[in-house]
Amino acid sequence: MGQKPSIPKGTRDFNAEEVAKRNYIFDTIKAKFEVFGFQPIETPSFENSETLMGKYGDEGDRLIFKILNSGEYLRKLSDEEFSSRYEKIITPKISEKALKYDLTVPFARYVVQHQNEIEFPFKRYQIQPVWRADRPQKGRFREFYQCDADVIGSQSLFQEVEFIQLYDAVFNALHLKGVTIKINNRKVLSGVAEVIGAQDKLIDFTVALDKLDKIGEVRVKEEMLSKGIPKAGLDKLQPLFELEGDFGSQIEQLKLILSESKEGLNGIEELEFVNNAITSLGLKSAKLQFDVTLARGLNYYTGAIFEVAAPKGVDMGSIGGGGRYDDLTGIFGLKNMSGVGISFGLDRIYLVLEELNLFPETITDATKVLFINFGETEAMACLKAVSKLREEGIKAELYPDDAKMKKQMTYANRRNIPYVALVGEEELKTNSFTLKNMETGDQETIDIQLLINRLK
Amino acid sequence: MGQKPSIPKGTRDFNAEEVAKRNYIFDTIKAKFEVFGFQPIETPSFENSETLMGKYGDEGDRLIFKILNSGEYLRKLSDEEFSSRYEKIITPKISEKALKYDLTVPFARYVVQHQNEIEFPFKRYQIQPVWRADRPQKGRFREFYQCDADVIGSQSLFQEVEFIQLYDAVFNALHLKGVTIKINNRKVLSGVAEVIGAQDKLIDFTVALDKLDKIGEVRVKEEMLSKGIPKAGLDKLQPLFELEGDFGSQIEQLKLILSESKEGLNGIEELEFVNNAITSLGLKSAKLQFDVTLARGLNYYTGAIFEVAAPKGVDMGSIGGGGRYDDLTGIFGLKNMSGVGISFGLDRIYLVLEELNLFPETITDATKVLFINFGETEAMACLKAVSKLREEGIKAELYPDDAKMKKQMTYANRRNIPYVALVGEEELKTNSFTLKNMETGDQETIDIQLLINRLK
Repeated sequence: MGQKPSIPKGTRDFNAEEVAKRNYIFDTIKAKFEVFGFQPIETPSFENSETLMGKYGDEGDRLIFKILNSGEYLRKLSDEEFSSRYEKIITPKISEKALKYDLTVPFARYVVQHQNEIEFPFKRYQIQPVWRADRPQKGRFREFYQCDADVIGSQSLFQEVEFIQLYDAVFNALHLKGVTIKINNRKVLSGVAEVIGAQDKLIDFTVALDKLDKIGEVRVKEEMLSKGIPKAGLDKLQPLFELEGDFGSQIEQLKLILSESKEGLNGIEELEFVNNAITSLGLKSAKLQFDVTLARGLNYYTGAIFEVAAPKGVDMGSIGGGGRYDDLTGIFGLKNMSGVGISFGLDRIYLVLEELNLFPETITDATKVLFINFGETEAMACLKAVSKLREEGIKAELYPDDAKMKKQMTYANRRNIPYVALVGEEELKTNSFTLKNMETGDQETIDIQLLINRLK
Repeated sequence: MGQKPSIPKGTRDFNAEEVAKRNYIFDTIKAKFEVFGFQPIETPSFENSETLMGKYGDEGDRLIFKILNSGEYLRKLSDEEFSSRYEKIITPKISEKALKYDLTVPFARYVVQHQNEIEFPFKRYQIQPVWRADRPQKGRFREFYQCDADVIGSQSLFQEVEFIQLYDAVFNALHLKGVTIKINNRKVLSGVAEVIGAQDKLIDFTVALDKLDKIGEVRVKEEMLSKGIPKAGLDKLQPLFELEGDFGSQIEQLKLILSESKEGLNGIEELEFVNNAITSLGLKSAKLQFDVTLARGLNYYTGAIFEVAAPKGVDMGSIGGGGRYDDLTGIFGLKNMSGVGISFGLDRIYLVLEELNLFPETITDATKVLFINFGETEAMACLKAVSKLREEGIKAELYPDDAKMKKQMTYANRRNIPYVALVGEEELKTNSFTLKNMETGDQETIDIQLLINRLK
């Protein structure tokens, strides 16, 4: 056959070093999730199509990977349906399952399906791959992991406080100091829209506002005007562009703008509660920042909105985000369940740690010692020692073939194995091992106990 | 909408306890893989269809989950192809990717694709899910994990020896004593077939022999006769049914049968080498057993064949298996790469550990202490303590709402949280905490340092 092998675009193979580095991030996040009281769940890679379809908008529906039914799947189509030759008609008949697109909708499905086994408030975390038929590009893949933690079944703002602490704890444990946790509140955005007479244009308004950093005040205003936001409203908006100072003083300025919006002031109160609690509790190395332009996933969030930015100087989009949603499980028939959750962007965190050289060297430590193979008898003696070392938790290997010495040494070198052990005639007689440090070239002949001590 | 939520048949949700138990098995296997010098790799969930199709026989092709192309996928079909309305013609045009069916073929693809980055012999392990459109039944799922370790690029029999040690090390670490590692050799089976004049009926011969345990000697012979194996051959086979004694003496008896088959004697030599080495090295708690009827995946294996049986008294199929294959990567154009590997059956191991009550109790330990919420001021004091406990690695939670005391206590009880901490007016004043043991009902009022000590 001899096909030239390749993998589908947007997917990746991971080698040992990459797996180790990814697991280091996963393990760090998991440990913090658990110490914060979150419990792991896992859901299947694919769901029934009706669970996913219609939950992410038309664009989302298009990007969901659909799985072809097995067997004679065309039989389910009527002649008329088949003849339509139209994907919208044919797809639902020949595909009943789809790969999950995110972890949130399967989580909502899980909560509803298992509601009688769950104690609410339910704090769950989930670290699993998801799939999107997006156009692959730098940093965007068709298969990637999401790391989510959510609490469902409580409206308490202490959850928001704890999620900020959780972000801080994770990034601090990853030695990634100086991240900025941005926070906003949907109610504040609604309030502002109300005050400027753009209640019915909330999305247009926030989409434009979100571009402030990139295109500047003048062009943001132009965009708002072009979307039909009244000129008089924009004037009222002016103080928003001039917010300055720390969290507290920005909030004070915003209060003036929002003085006539009940919802807006409610949002302000929530922000103040969270900021006061965090100020009182303190953060290790992250900084909490109010950002009135933050509006990610607005259709979805109903209260707090979070986003985490990498430390200054690292050119990377957000490395985490989340917020509160008041009715996640309603789509599956369980009403009035308020939830709040955050997510960590594994691939971007990986790139940031790589760029800042923050991966601990030890995590990619592989085999510590290679025993050189001089033939069957010597190899048996080596394998006995290898077994003892392994019992002590030392990663040890025997070169499997009695190949030329040079070949075996080259193998140790290329694999960055720091020590080789040699057992020849002399060592066999004296029950000893010659241990060679591959970096310094130093070698010594020692017994098994010393060998263990040296390598431990 | 209010759909009644469910998941596709053959798939599973895992709750916190199940995730913890599964991870305990994964982590134990991983730790041993690594101490034996295996390196982790990961491959994408889906591969290009041509990578997988044709590698598992017709039945396998049928059981591979195919992913529908995105967008207007019907356009790739000519009018003629479309009108055929025949899945064999239409599927390859509307589906170009497929979920992986096992880890072995993607591993072969990986080795060939990355051959210039790999040092051979290459020892890799891989723990990932695979998908099969099999009819779901007890213990058989459409999504399940495989845990594989393989070495590629060496013909040394020391590999076989090490894989037996690896099985022993893993099952011993799981406290699953008394597993039987069965071994056979394809060359022995070929040799016997040759000797009895059934070279061309190797598969029929081994399929019948494999049933010896279930249907007995008489019916095995009947089946062989019915498949055209000569009567004279069956007479020569007689000693095979009467093999007895330990590994060594069975091998001696087999030598007599195989005295005229070069290939058979070669197989015998390999078995002897492995058995002698294992005898010399010793096993912790597993037993190595020769089983001439063992023939799993015969088309595939070319040397050693392994299978692991659960301890006596546990009614479970094999919990692991593997063997040597001489040309795994040939399908992708890289010839003469001998490989040998083993696999662990996660789902069955899980059931065995469950049945024998071998999961350590601690692995499902979740939150250690719940702080009762008496209102905002008290809760803030609690959250400060919670933060300190978490820094000490203690899993601690604050009940998020100031719900009725009884509701909060019931929550702690239902979640099996062993301690609750209470901060009321008194404790606020004295900067102390009342810690209640939920099992004994004992309680004491202590400061933060004692609280940490008690819970650590």
